[in-house]
Amino acid sequence: MNAVALSVDMVWVTLSAILVIFMQAGFALLEAGSTRMKNAGHIAGKQVFSFALAGIAFWAVGYAVAFGEGTPLFGTSGWFLRFPAEEGGIPTEILFLFQLAFAAVSLAIAWGGFAERAKLSAYFLFGTLFVAVIYPIATHWIWGGGWLSTLGKQDFAGSTVVHLQGGIAALVATLMLGPRIGKFNRDGTANNLPGHNQVYTVLGVLIIWIGWFGFNPGSTLSVQDGFFGYVALTTNLAAATGAIAALFTVRIITGKADISMMLNGVLAALVAITASCAFVEPWAAVIIGAVAGMLAVYSVFYLERRGVDDPIYAFSVHGVAGIWGTLSTGLFASPRLIEIVGVGGPGLLYGGGFRQLGIQALGVTVTALYVAIATFLVLWVIDRLIGLRVSKEEEMMGLDLSEHGVYGYPEQLMPPGGAASMARSASSEEAI
Amino acid sequence: MNAVALSVDMVWVTLSAILVIFMQAGFALLEAGSTRMKNAGHIAGKQVFSFALAGIAFWAVGYAVAFGEGTPLFGTSGWFLRFPAEEGGIPTEILFLFQLAFAAVSLAIAWGGFAERAKLSAYFLFGTLFVAVIYPIATHWIWGGGWLSTLGKQDFAGSTVVHLQGGIAALVATLMLGPRIGKFNRDGTANNLPGHNQVYTVLGVLIIWIGWFGFNPGSTLSVQDGFFGYVALTTNLAAATGAIAALFTVRIITGKADISMMLNGVLAALVAITASCAFVEPWAAVIIGAVAGMLAVYSVFYLERRGVDDPIYAFSVHGVAGIWGTLSTGLFASPRLIEIVGVGGPGLLYGGGFRQLGIQALGVTVTALYVAIATFLVLWVIDRLIGLRVSKEEEMMGLDLSEHGVYGYPEQLMPPGGAASMARSASSEEAI
Amino acid sequence: MNAVALSVDMVWVTLSAILVIFMQAGFALLEAGSTRMKNAGHIAGKQVFSFALAGIAFWAVGYAVAFGEGTPLFGTSGWFLRFPAEEGGIPTEILFLFQLAFAAVSLAIAWGGFAERAKLSAYFLFGTLFVAVIYPIATHWIWGGGWLSTLGKQDFAGSTVVHLQGGIAALVATLMLGPRIGKFNRDGTANNLPGHNQVYTVLGVLIIWIGWFGFNPGSTLSVQDGFFGYVALTTNLAAATGAIAALFTVRIITGKADISMMLNGVLAALVAITASCAFVEPWAAVIIGAVAGMLAVYSVFYLERRGVDDPIYAFSVHGVAGIWGTLSTGLFASPRLIEIVGVGGPGLLYGGGFRQLGIQALGVTVTALYVAIATFLVLWVIDRLIGLRVSKEEEMMGLDLSEHGVYGYPEQLMPPGGAASMARSASSEEAI
Repeated sequence: MNAVALSVDMVWVTLSAILVIFMQAGFALLEAGSTRMKNAGHIAGKQVFSFALAGIAFWAVGYAVAFGEGTPLFGTSGWFLRFPAEEGGIPTEILFLFQLAFAAVSLAIAWGGFAERAKLSAYFLFGTLFVAVIYPIATHWIWGGGWLSTLGKQDFAGSTVVHLQGGIAALVATLMLGPRIGKFNRDGTANNLPGHNQVYTVLGVLIIWIGWFGFNPGSTLSVQDGFFGYVALTTNLAAATGAIAALFTVRIITGKADISMMLNGVLAALVAITASCAFVEPWAAVIIGAVAGMLAVYSVFYLERRGVDDPIYAFSVHGVAGIWGTLSTGLFASPRLIEIVGVGGPGLLYGGGFRQLGIQALGVTVTALYVAIATFLVLWVIDRLIGLRVSKEEEMMGLDLSEHGVYGYPEQLMPPGGAASMARSASSEEAI
Repeated sequence: MNAVALSVDMVWVTLSAILVIFMQAGFALLEAGSTRMKNAGHIAGKQVFSFALAGIAFWAVGYAVAFGEGTPLFGTSGWFLRFPAEEGGIPTEILFLFQLAFAAVSLAIAWGGFAERAKLSAYFLFGTLFVAVIYPIATHWIWGGGWLSTLGKQDFAGSTVVHLQGGIAALVATLMLGPRIGKFNRDGTANNLPGHNQVYTVLGVLIIWIGWFGFNPGSTLSVQDGFFGYVALTTNLAAATGAIAALFTVRIITGKADISMMLNGVLAALVAITASCAFVEPWAAVIIGAVAGMLAVYSVFYLERRGVDDPIYAFSVHGVAGIWGTLSTGLFASPRLIEIVGVGGPGLLYGGGFRQLGIQALGVTVTALYVAIATFLVLWVIDRLIGLRVSKEEEMMGLDLSEHGVYGYPEQLMPPGGAASMARSASSEEAI
Repeated sequence: MNAVALSVDMVWVTLSAILVIFMQAGFALLEAGSTRMKNAGHIAGKQVFSFALAGIAFWAVGYAVAFGEGTPLFGTSGWFLRFPAEEGGIPTEILFLFQLAFAAVSLAIAWGGFAERAKLSAYFLFGTLFVAVIYPIATHWIWGGGWLSTLGKQDFAGSTVVHLQGGIAALVATLMLGPRIGKFNRDGTANNLPGHNQVYTVLGVLIIWIGWFGFNPGSTLSVQDGFFGYVALTTNLAAATGAIAALFTVRIITGKADISMMLNGVLAALVAITASCAFVEPWAAVIIGAVAGMLAVYSVFYLERRGVDDPIYAFSVHGVAGIWGTLSTGLFASPRLIEIVGVGGPGLLYGGGFRQLGIQALGVTVTALYVAIATFLVLWVIDRLIGLRVSKEEEMMGLDLSEHGVYGYPEQLMPPGGAASMARSASSEEAI
């Protein structure tokens, strides 16, 4: 490829990385808006912290485990991005930035399971290990030349790699931490703990939607044939049908056009189309998105009935839809598009039989099991060492105050017994 | 054109599309911030819904009507983006994404006239028809090879196509729905119903401003000669003078530097320069922006005095400035720039006489009449079928609760008679 | 260079400019979130005003002073961007947009020192002069071919040019305006006046972080060799370590993981790496970021103890870190990278002795002194002419009401003696 053509690809991948990094802002808003005022500063702020951690841990260790030369199970070279210089490809720094953005999204998803009750120090330890070790290993299997990629596993932009890994980690965390105080009554019925700001959640989801134009089309890593435009189309079609399907589904179930369920539908559809965006025809993208939107809504209600408190719906949106999306190429992958992408075989509906579907199912199963076990072990050790969950008093008071010393909205929330509230000191007689 | 040069154009148009799609977040914030807390979740959330609807309706039908081969009045081919493959141009998927972003902006503008009192189901029906049929027809006239483009109508990036169409639809909707409860007193004087969050409106306008760097410069559809940089300059100059002119205007009228009027000035100037950005010299951009900023402020006060309640100022900002912007090329279009763009003739000030001004005026008049009639008919039918406006009780309570079942700010607003408020259940004795 | 390669650079620089302009939204959120509810509309809104002012003043005058031909002290040609047409380079309009974005960031930083107590008219006058004259002069010295650039001063993307200038202007302003009412008690101890919304500050900082991928990598002005990817890497590494270092530092000092200090750490690290991003190895970027994060936190506490009320921490974040970042190339600039960039010599640690460190120190000292004196003179004149600070009553009531006539949150804040509050008129008996 000539140097100018390469420079266009470099610009494209870098801008895609920036779009995906922008999703951090989307997750901060989505998560803060979906939880309560007393935790808003904590929840938003830890997203910055999380991206900072990822930026160091993935640079020093994680990228080498995921993309370094090594074994079919993990990479063993390229620590601190020290790769042998290569002529004529996209520079390692740019590929790193793109992959860092993905790893940070997976971590952001995992945090969903921790919301409103985990210690900041637990975030610190788990986040470092997730980005440095847990996430890169399965990533190596699928994208780093590992054993699943050898089998022809299709996962164009990461329904399994990014979303299922994050969603499973969130599920394990939310099960180990247990429900938030007040979520369930003594008789097992659930209370609604609505998020405190739907403008934030809407803005968050729109930013995430925008970011997905880097996530999926950017995963082409090249613009030379214009195929990235096709990927953008299937991605957007799925997101659109996911929103509408989820809205109708929740309206049928509850009689109300619940906005947070519609937003879950958008996200679930985007998660599902992530594996398949480059492998399926537009009509299939419409179906994949709609099914994902419905599945996410049903999953939210199902988990709640089963006594699972998944505060940000991380497992329903990223886990369930991640599974569906990964399996969907086994159904809908079209020979015409497989020829372009060059991974795996056609789906069941195109005469491919159950072969590709089987590979997809295997990939999902093994990855989910692996992440579940690894997350469980790490969190179990952290729990033994320092404890995962804050005290009941701290949780009631809110993590803004207990972990960070000030509410995120100090003029709207008063510390318990707040006579000496800092926020009011401005009007104290002593002040000048 | 060689393949690499084409790939640069593809990247540019795609990124411009993403910037314009990002304006959806801007409109969600602008509109939610400009209205009241009790409707915030509804207003923001319907923006996601709206972009989803547009993503399906414009893909299946609208794009074919606007850009398909057919008659001078509308296109009749290309349903579901099925266009014959073409060698050597920007792929249809990318052009679609760019045009979808424009259609969705036009719909977002139209929603302004519905704010705080229309039924969600009315949004659904009108939105689908607007994007699939109403908007694409006039778009075909001007950009799709239809009769106005044959006449040499100048509308570089859509002052008429996008903004006037949206602004007229908003005006018709706001007139048919009538003023919000509490807007006017019995004696005909108006109450101020200030928007609930100016940080949202500011953020919204800054995002929209950013998005306009995709809107206008992206409409070059090519970067090969660097002309898109010139378009970015005139666009930014106009926005800047629009802000300052509007701020001074409102300060002279009311004595206060009203922020929402300044923001209207930015938007009106951007709307106005949209038609003319590629046709006029920088000094003319400065004038076009300043006049648009002033016009928008005067129009807001005028409509209020006339008893029209345009909640988000959609007609003043997009309609009035859309007319002014479209006419402005008839005054200021410079021969040097027309040679580059290749559409229409020079303006009055460059010795072009009244010819181009007449074509511009004709385009504005016909498009405005067409959209007004089409919108009226569609809304009239919807009103007969299911009703356009929520009940008085629902409007008082807020659409968040009536349409979606929960306030957008559940910790700050209590449902009427809210003893059994869901938001407070967390502290109930039953909860564990 | 061939035309297609040039077009890629044009796209890259334009998109970088857009990313940096997006930082205006980041600053609006950061500043509004860091201050109190009663000033939120004013603080956010003036950011739009500020970018509008800059867009006119830098176009008409500032760009010519900074980048026009002229003397070693300032440019004297190119008013209103009238530069002789050049073949084969990035068009002036695009370079202008990029540099405008930088000037507007510097002004945004300067505003930090004015927060919550300066008159809107003072903003207007100072902003115009800062962008038209003060900022461009020192910019000419370093980037416009002036005397410091002749000496080999290293400042890749503006630690000195953009951040130190803004930070010093903010410091002078905050000293001349004096502390906000209520900040200090009679005994000299400080009260905490926490910002009202940490979700805004987090979102603001994430947007600014994103914008920095335009700021530093965009300053390569070319993508042909992929070096911009390297710059993105060092930038992100520094930001990440800055966050973590600041969080640990503040936790050690106060026992709480203060979120606003962590955010200051991110910004300080980004400020510091701005000069050095292209000159230093990744390990040095890690050190530069960490030191900046710590310095910022210590500086905040130091200034508060000294009775200086710097509401948005503008001097600690942009001034102190700007000095550290500029000096850091004198320590860490690596010969391998200097060869690529082609400015100045190696740092102390690479055997360059004190030569480059001396040049850096000279640049910092002269620029800081110059900006301090110029800012002082301008503000002194404004104070004499119209007064800098609002009255005590206006400050207590909040600038939203006194300067703009309505609170930014009219449903959450009532005007003093608010029986006749506009916001409540909707429920008045007169309303229909």
